[in-house]
Amino acid sequence: MNRRPFIKLAVGASLASVYSRAQEAQAEPKKLGWALVGLGSLSKNQIAPALLKSKHSRLAAVVTGTPAKGVEWREKYGLAENKVYNYENFDKIIEDKDVDVVYIVLPNSMHHEYVLRAAKAGKHVFCEKPMANTAKECREMIAACEKAKVLLGVAYRCQFEAHHLEAIRFGREKVFGALKHVNAEFGFKIGDPKQWRLRKDLAGGGALMDVGVYALNACRYLTGEEPVEISALETKTDPVKFAEVDETITWQMKFASGITANCMTTYNFNGANNFTVTAEKGRYGMGPAYGYSGQTGWTSDAKVPFAFPPSDHFVLEMDAFSEAIINGKPFAVPGEEGLKDLLAVEAIYRSIKNGKPEAVEKA
Amino acid sequence: MNRRPFIKLAVGASLASVYSRAQEAQAEPKKLGWALVGLGSLSKNQIAPALLKSKHSRLAAVVTGTPAKGVEWREKYGLAENKVYNYENFDKIIEDKDVDVVYIVLPNSMHHEYVLRAAKAGKHVFCEKPMANTAKECREMIAACEKAKVLLGVAYRCQFEAHHLEAIRFGREKVFGALKHVNAEFGFKIGDPKQWRLRKDLAGGGALMDVGVYALNACRYLTGEEPVEISALETKTDPVKFAEVDETITWQMKFASGITANCMTTYNFNGANNFTVTAEKGRYGMGPAYGYSGQTGWTSDAKVPFAFPPSDHFVLEMDAFSEAIINGKPFAVPGEEGLKDLLAVEAIYRSIKNGKPEAVEKA
Repeated sequence: MNRRPFIKLAVGASLASVYSRAQEAQAEPKKLGWALVGLGSLSKNQIAPALLKSKHSRLAAVVTGTPAKGVEWREKYGLAENKVYNYENFDKIIEDKDVDVVYIVLPNSMHHEYVLRAAKAGKHVFCEKPMANTAKECREMIAACEKAKVLLGVAYRCQFEAHHLEAIRFGREKVFGALKHVNAEFGFKIGDPKQWRLRKDLAGGGALMDVGVYALNACRYLTGEEPVEISALETKTDPVKFAEVDETITWQMKFASGITANCMTTYNFNGANNFTVTAEKGRYGMGPAYGYSGQTGWTSDAKVPFAFPPSDHFVLEMDAFSEAIINGKPFAVPGEEGLKDLLAVEAIYRSIKNGKPEAVEKA
Repeated sequence: MNRRPFIKLAVGASLASVYSRAQEAQAEPKKLGWALVGLGSLSKNQIAPALLKSKHSRLAAVVTGTPAKGVEWREKYGLAENKVYNYENFDKIIEDKDVDVVYIVLPNSMHHEYVLRAAKAGKHVFCEKPMANTAKECREMIAACEKAKVLLGVAYRCQFEAHHLEAIRFGREKVFGALKHVNAEFGFKIGDPKQWRLRKDLAGGGALMDVGVYALNACRYLTGEEPVEISALETKTDPVKFAEVDETITWQMKFASGITANCMTTYNFNGANNFTVTAEKGRYGMGPAYGYSGQTGWTSDAKVPFAFPPSDHFVLEMDAFSEAIINGKPFAVPGEEGLKDLLAVEAIYRSIKNGKPEAVEKA
């Protein structure tokens, strides 16, 4: 088998059985069974359609607290009655050999509980971003998955998209020389004032937790470094709508090598959806950068192209996770990625609260 | 005449005489005589050539501490011997009726003294940016020019360039709706480690004082608002070269209306020379933005063009200053503009020193 502890035998779907089944049907690529926990708009409009197009992943079950949604999904995706779980009987999924992966698509505050329950059920766990409301929760989720010997992945889909991968390569291979400064912004004008994203208990925070983490995550993967110091300011123009969570946050980061970053996230307006990297010998960037589609790249050097065909990021990330399981390889975006972002998020919130720059705790 | 105190009769070249002379020679536009104080590369390569192309301004005298430069300039520009002043006899310029404007192109720390001496000599004063090393000096310079009833202008040439003016119009006329966020960056990799720009006593600071003020000034004129709170971080990768002054500074600003800004300035690398404005209904920006040429604009709406022919910013700003004097009108970029930038600069340095966000003192 494999020496890496987190991809050793899982309780539910063992790697051994995965391997043998994959060998049996070489002509048809092995598709792991995914269970979606939470049937909100992301599951409905992005993830489930992506599973229909996936090479190594398929919809095996759903978990919902709304029986009507269960009926709807059974009809739409031809699921058997026993493939619709609710939050009470969810733990029985341990007996469901058809489910290899559990994908947590719940409000942020519920990620921790359901990752722990999925791991306990012996399932590999794929978790939406932000990974949890606190770094402490992230550590517990990582530990739980290690203990259960299941793989834990965080759904940072941009890290599987061709432009972002190329931007990472620009940095690692110093195509434009050493990196110096990153500017990254992501925000949108949020609608319905009653949605869970505006409730602190469910979302853990506002724009920063929801979309700011894309800009933050980009700064980390573009540079390949961790921020060491962060200074942040919060701006609130609508204290009623944003009574519980942050509306707009700007923050600055210093990296150990001297790279600097400026970031902005907001729930107050549309349009900011980009990054720009300034390097020794040139610049490159994306805009739009982080949405489900429309990725557009540019470079300061006409001889360095930066354009790729559109792709379904959800297909890419889920298949990458399935492939990591099938091949017994580490996943590119493990729980530690989510933890490192939460450590930076916590430094941002601390900086706002304490009115001073804050050191970022090490993972 | 005019009721505005700062454009009342000047001691040297009175507005009345300017008017009458202008009327005498209507076919040929009146050209005011400019004296350049400091014959460094900016005077040599930009300002003097611009004066040859100006409509309302001409080179009337120079002030230099280097006799050889005096000879060189006399030969090149056909100046009489008595049109070359030195720093000792500079004050005699009061008697030179051919000099209407004194343009201070000295190291930053000398702006204050020479603006005061020029005002005392009854000359209108045009002063390079940053206006001075401290806001206190700026206030004294403004007061001195008011007392002497001469016009004081600050050489923020971008405020006369077509793209920047159009970007200002976008904001004022809400072409893309209300402004929400500005990102502005300007820096370059500085050469000669022995130059005055790296000496705190002469430059007052580093990248921020030299080029960061362009980004800062842009945030102010693009929004038409003053920053109320600033948080800044300094990054130093070469503590030898930048022993006395700042190398790289990132800073964030909050404006009263809720507009936010992220800025970066550096002496450590080339390439950052841009701004981006995110507004309610679209985005626009420039890059390159602040150099002597190459201004390039873009907007998120193909129906809103943002391109103008190249121009000589030095011609534009000097002619605008001459015209303000000739027409008895206020100048678009008065001393108060320099003061407001220095108040923000001081908040930036205070924030770095005190390790916390700082309120910006009001002008």
